[in-house]
Amino acid sequence: MTFPRIGVSLGDPGGIGPEVVLRALTGDDRLPQAAFVLFGTSAVVERAASASGVRPEAAAWSPAETKAPGLFLSEIPVRLEAEPPARPDAGNGEASFRFFAAAVAEARRGALDAVVTAPVSKAAWKLAGVPWRGHTEYLESLYPGAIMSFWSPRLKVALLSHHLPLREALAKVRRANLLAFLHELGRTAGQAPGGPREFLVAGLNPHAGEDGLLGDEEEKEIKPAIEAARAEGLRVSGPYPPDTIFRSALDRPEAMAVALYHDQGLIAFKLEAFETGVNVTLGLPFVRTSPDHGTAFDIAGRGTASARSMVEAIRLAALFSASAS
Amino acid sequence: MTFPRIGVSLGDPGGIGPEVVLRALTGDDRLPQAAFVLFGTSAVVERAASASGVRPEAAAWSPAETKAPGLFLSEIPVRLEAEPPARPDAGNGEASFRFFAAAVAEARRGALDAVVTAPVSKAAWKLAGVPWRGHTEYLESLYPGAIMSFWSPRLKVALLSHHLPLREALAKVRRANLLAFLHELGRTAGQAPGGPREFLVAGLNPHAGEDGLLGDEEEKEIKPAIEAARAEGLRVSGPYPPDTIFRSALDRPEAMAVALYHDQGLIAFKLEAFETGVNVTLGLPFVRTSPDHGTAFDIAGRGTASARSMVEAIRLAALFSASAS
Repeated sequence: MTFPRIGVSLGDPGGIGPEVVLRALTGDDRLPQAAFVLFGTSAVVERAASASGVRPEAAAWSPAETKAPGLFLSEIPVRLEAEPPARPDAGNGEASFRFFAAAVAEARRGALDAVVTAPVSKAAWKLAGVPWRGHTEYLESLYPGAIMSFWSPRLKVALLSHHLPLREALAKVRRANLLAFLHELGRTAGQAPGGPREFLVAGLNPHAGEDGLLGDEEEKEIKPAIEAARAEGLRVSGPYPPDTIFRSALDRPEAMAVALYHDQGLIAFKLEAFETGVNVTLGLPFVRTSPDHGTAFDIAGRGTASARSMVEAIRLAALFSASAS
Repeated sequence: MTFPRIGVSLGDPGGIGPEVVLRALTGDDRLPQAAFVLFGTSAVVERAASASGVRPEAAAWSPAETKAPGLFLSEIPVRLEAEPPARPDAGNGEASFRFFAAAVAEARRGALDAVVTAPVSKAAWKLAGVPWRGHTEYLESLYPGAIMSFWSPRLKVALLSHHLPLREALAKVRRANLLAFLHELGRTAGQAPGGPREFLVAGLNPHAGEDGLLGDEEEKEIKPAIEAARAEGLRVSGPYPPDTIFRSALDRPEAMAVALYHDQGLIAFKLEAFETGVNVTLGLPFVRTSPDHGTAFDIAGRGTASARSMVEAIRLAALFSASAS
């Protein structure tokens, strides 16, 4: 019998990442049978265990010998203060990058099926001189076709582009670019168990351009891309008015909305999926999920942060892994 | 004792407008004491009364003699079919434009304090050769400083621009333009009873530009406008990340979010305020409100359409009127 092997990077040692990881993995939420491999240090795990009042037993991980489900630790050598500060800090930034990069490296060489990432501080990465803005940018540097998507029980959204100035994001709304995106989305999300079977594409302009009255991208770029994707056999429709498409996609587990720029999708998602949202990077040879919240330095170490989004992230990672193995 | 004088245009005769107006005005929702003046025809009122099972008594309206609260009818001469078709139709378009324009004319000359507009079909206006796209465009042709805003019990949003291609809307995000907008918003919404006392301005780019990394409009245009508005004494703050500002403004009756383009505001508003939203045009010498739904031709004449948004529109019109009188 196979079981998924899921790496979990602990995130910024000064944030809520380590504690929500431990609470998610030891709480009474029934997670599937899997080998969960923490990427961090035993000191960070100890501290998080005290904060959250759980006592996990994590065996040292040996990739070649992962023969049973359970909790493991891959000890990453980093230099950290005994009390990692709860603010953007170079040492914490360096450590959280290494935890993440080590987990990704193991997934790339096939020792893991999925990687779940606890939140990092982008400011800390910057202080540490890490040349990537965040997790997604690092993954994109390895896999240029990576897709940012967001999943919750009520709504699923994929973003055609994400961290670009709005003006530049508009320039990405081109027929060929959108078609390649829809193709990759259908190949990945469209084939995951429990994943969407139908893709609803938003328009770019108010009322989806209102037949060309309010902009021409719908006629010139978006409709031709949708038609070409359909000709490939994908279940794609649109363009729909941006201000109603998300209500249409709500509570339809078989549907995923395609947003043409960052805020088009995330304004809707963050309103509907607060605390339960999961960030899923598609288009990689492994699965990467992440809770849709930040380091929350202000409440770190108190054991009060909600582990709900982290539980969802781990569940989704296991679901995708099961299909891959 | 004064009471508000509120004109109500019946909207497209083939849509749900007439029936929701009658149900809103005769239902058990306690509306304030006011003179409600219907702009339409007695035939349209009769038909809507049959559909909705109410029997209103509307006296013929004489502007000079409105001395008491009650229900009145201003009969507008139009040529209509006995059964106005429930689809975009030139005759219905002409009629609904005349109902609306007559109410606006009475408000302009001071015979009304507010105008509530039932939904029209933009396609019908086009078929009838009406040279304006909709209610708001007609009002803007008379009052170029008119502001489109949306009100619900949980969220209030004002739009810097509305029916423009996104590319053109971006070009409107300029310091002077935004400052003039904030100034007018503070003068109107900011002084209405029950209106907002604080304005939260969205950024344009993801994460509000992230200190210039993801776009420069925040630094060059938006922050200077906010600072200048504050120097005028307005309670304005921002720019906030577009994907979290609406959650911040939710359930804060004293706050209104300022969206920089149509969908930025309406994606959030339509998700949160479905069926209870009201469209409020500010920056006019009178108040104009409208329910946030369309003609719904598919269910017209059955008496099943929800009057909830219309009740809210009438309530808000009365509230604003009370402050003006």
